[in-house]
Amino acid sequence: MIDTFKTLLGDAGVLTEPDDVAPYATDWKHTVRGAPACVLRPRNTADVAAVMRIAHERRIVIVPQGGNTGLAAGAVPDASGSQVVLSLSRMKAIQNVDPVGMTIEAEAGCILKTAQDAAADVGRLLPISLAAEGSAQIGGVVSTNAGGINVLRYGMARQLVLGLEVVQADGTVINGLRSLRKDNAGYDWKQLFIGSEGTLGIVTAAVLRLMPRPKLVVTSLLAVADPAAALRLLKLMQDELGETINAFELISGLSVKLVEEQFGQRAPLAGNGWFVLIEASANLGGLREAFENVLSRALEQAIATDGVIAESQTQAAQLWAIRERITEAELKAGRSVKHDVSVPIPALPAFLADAEASVSSGFPGARINAFGHAGDGNMHFNVLVSVDTDSAALNRSVYDLVAIHGGSISAEHGIGSYRVAELAHYRAGAELSIARLLKRSLDPKGILNSGKILGMEK
Amino acid sequence: MIDTFKTLLGDAGVLTEPDDVAPYATDWKHTVRGAPACVLRPRNTADVAAVMRIAHERRIVIVPQGGNTGLAAGAVPDASGSQVVLSLSRMKAIQNVDPVGMTIEAEAGCILKTAQDAAADVGRLLPISLAAEGSAQIGGVVSTNAGGINVLRYGMARQLVLGLEVVQADGTVINGLRSLRKDNAGYDWKQLFIGSEGTLGIVTAAVLRLMPRPKLVVTSLLAVADPAAALRLLKLMQDELGETINAFELISGLSVKLVEEQFGQRAPLAGNGWFVLIEASANLGGLREAFENVLSRALEQAIATDGVIAESQTQAAQLWAIRERITEAELKAGRSVKHDVSVPIPALPAFLADAEASVSSGFPGARINAFGHAGDGNMHFNVLVSVDTDSAALNRSVYDLVAIHGGSISAEHGIGSYRVAELAHYRAGAELSIARLLKRSLDPKGILNSGKILGMEK
Repeated sequence: MIDTFKTLLGDAGVLTEPDDVAPYATDWKHTVRGAPACVLRPRNTADVAAVMRIAHERRIVIVPQGGNTGLAAGAVPDASGSQVVLSLSRMKAIQNVDPVGMTIEAEAGCILKTAQDAAADVGRLLPISLAAEGSAQIGGVVSTNAGGINVLRYGMARQLVLGLEVVQADGTVINGLRSLRKDNAGYDWKQLFIGSEGTLGIVTAAVLRLMPRPKLVVTSLLAVADPAAALRLLKLMQDELGETINAFELISGLSVKLVEEQFGQRAPLAGNGWFVLIEASANLGGLREAFENVLSRALEQAIATDGVIAESQTQAAQLWAIRERITEAELKAGRSVKHDVSVPIPALPAFLADAEASVSSGFPGARINAFGHAGDGNMHFNVLVSVDTDSAALNRSVYDLVAIHGGSISAEHGIGSYRVAELAHYRAGAELSIARLLKRSLDPKGILNSGKILGMEK
Repeated sequence: MIDTFKTLLGDAGVLTEPDDVAPYATDWKHTVRGAPACVLRPRNTADVAAVMRIAHERRIVIVPQGGNTGLAAGAVPDASGSQVVLSLSRMKAIQNVDPVGMTIEAEAGCILKTAQDAAADVGRLLPISLAAEGSAQIGGVVSTNAGGINVLRYGMARQLVLGLEVVQADGTVINGLRSLRKDNAGYDWKQLFIGSEGTLGIVTAAVLRLMPRPKLVVTSLLAVADPAAALRLLKLMQDELGETINAFELISGLSVKLVEEQFGQRAPLAGNGWFVLIEASANLGGLREAFENVLSRALEQAIATDGVIAESQTQAAQLWAIRERITEAELKAGRSVKHDVSVPIPALPAFLADAEASVSSGFPGARINAFGHAGDGNMHFNVLVSVDTDSAALNRSVYDLVAIHGGSISAEHGIGSYRVAELAHYRAGAELSIARLLKRSLDPKGILNSGKILGMEK
């Protein structure tokens, strides 16, 4: 098998040495360690198609991998020693950036940051922004339907995909790299490959939408009594500022305290409840004035108890640093069990109260580090626990409440190999049935990233 | 069969009298006349599921129908006398309207305008707006991935669907009526049913996103020399006004002349080339001033040759009337052959020039009524022709150029039964293959709206 692949891809296209293979064998969090038979590094779509034809003929499981920055171990092989990693890293060309049509076409291996920069160079915005953007690749961003900090305004990755090129399980290439805003000619098959984590096909290139680049930005941190007050603030902001709100981040008091303890950074305002970090941007004058008016009203109406607006980019960066340092502060504080969940926005206060009560009673001593994209209904409900805490039981108690409140056990991180059992438990039978039907139809031999999302097919 | 359905749905749920059935048997344009075996009018999702179980067992073809306002004859039965229309009209409840979470949940039969009004009542905007909104139903809007005049800003219907309930070919109900902004828990199966025109399943209810309601609106008509100048204007507008632009409509001189001839309405500005109608809206002050600045720059730089801004809602309505009357003016002017096409935005000028040259040389005397959503790359390229013009040859000459320029033969109207042969001709084999695979997988007996989009399966 190795020789066949070497003939096809050249020696540089097939990695087999343990040191070379190691970075591809484990996920970013080093939680899973796989044993790939080898790592393939195709140069172009034709290479990928040729690999898949061989894999299809010989029933070799192919695990597509981009920047390997995922948080659900969806891009690493299992420990069997038989799965083959297909890295898209060498296919990184940007084919086209168009400021008038506002599109960018890039190969799967193009780093997200590189694509962002290319858009900025023509005065446009590629509005997918996430912590791993310096390593994450376009193919992975599309395959996992990545989220990030601008979803409130610009949507998930899916909303920005105009065209896609995909290699199917049997090596068939479907080229749908159109740059069209509107296209109702037949089924929109590309949707199948967005967010299915490489289990239905391999994304080799994409055309993404760009957006106008806002010139004015306002960044503000506010103190609120509780999540219910945060939602009143969200409504007021949306009433007055419309779609200019990029981010509306809810941060628990404990989260801010962790940053203070671990980094010595204090929030620049009084507050003993929760905090909200808001970023708004626009091209129209009047943004700052309108924001100040809303802030005044929020204080007058006691929706917020205190608030600051950044007076400079430096101050804005300091406010964002509080939010961005939470994850590392949590890491320094000890063991935690993480949940990336979403609920309908109006259900956030009740979910948070119920989940806190459930964790407090079931896991005495646990501390809840809750923060996240409240404007999207997405919270990172992380729990600081002792070493002997039963994480499966903790997950169950949190996810049961997510289900009761009509939410999702994975808002943006996906299922990968981490949450396979939980997906099977929490999603209704009819939803799983159609998912399995799609998997069997598009990958009848079960060679595409087997074991992820739906687990191993019988 | 009729008796079985009457037992299930009651007498009021099954129409068989010719007069009762007639409105369901023909499309809005009265181009196709079908012969349904009967018309079924279920009261709820359980009824739809029961109908599908029977249809599945007995291989009865079911043609789902909403407001029957489609422009591709996608919701009418064939002439065989054996197909059954399933009208969703009685399932019209609005289940929930949420101004904080900014969502609306409605049954398939809910009229689009009713849903828009319900959103407005809570201060929110349901931003799907189209000429047929007083009759079109939510189920049809979702099933056809409807477009309309606000796509530039808010996207097609797909972008606004958060949750879906679907009845499958065998009667299985998949309830995915979640109100979540972010949900990466498994395959996003609902995408399959958006835009597939009832050929893969029947949409029975949907959760749609709402948007903040802009308070300020600017409407403007500008004269430009040609489509290339219109694109320079589009770029300038997007640079300066960002996402506040709701509509950017390009209108040919002939289109304006037709409105003048048929309605006596003149454009309130000089121009002997093309026109652009722009609507922008926002919640921030500064919109009008920014718009005036851009207009001044466009005139200074000779991008536009003249321009007016509406000073009142009445004037704004008059500007919009020019655009909205084009279709009727065309109808009054005689026979026309219509094309709802899209190309990449930068390709618009070349496509329009090429298509005009091709039509002029191939069809002497034909006049081109070109207008449409240029900000989306979507033009209604309609051709006024004599009675003896070969419309198939004309279609071919236009669609060949659409293909050359990387476009779509159906931007927003869909395929239905009108464009089945053209889809098969213009879409690549791999795209049709995966479409057929999905059809066979989800509707193995071929009972869901058979003959639409992909034609009759062998």
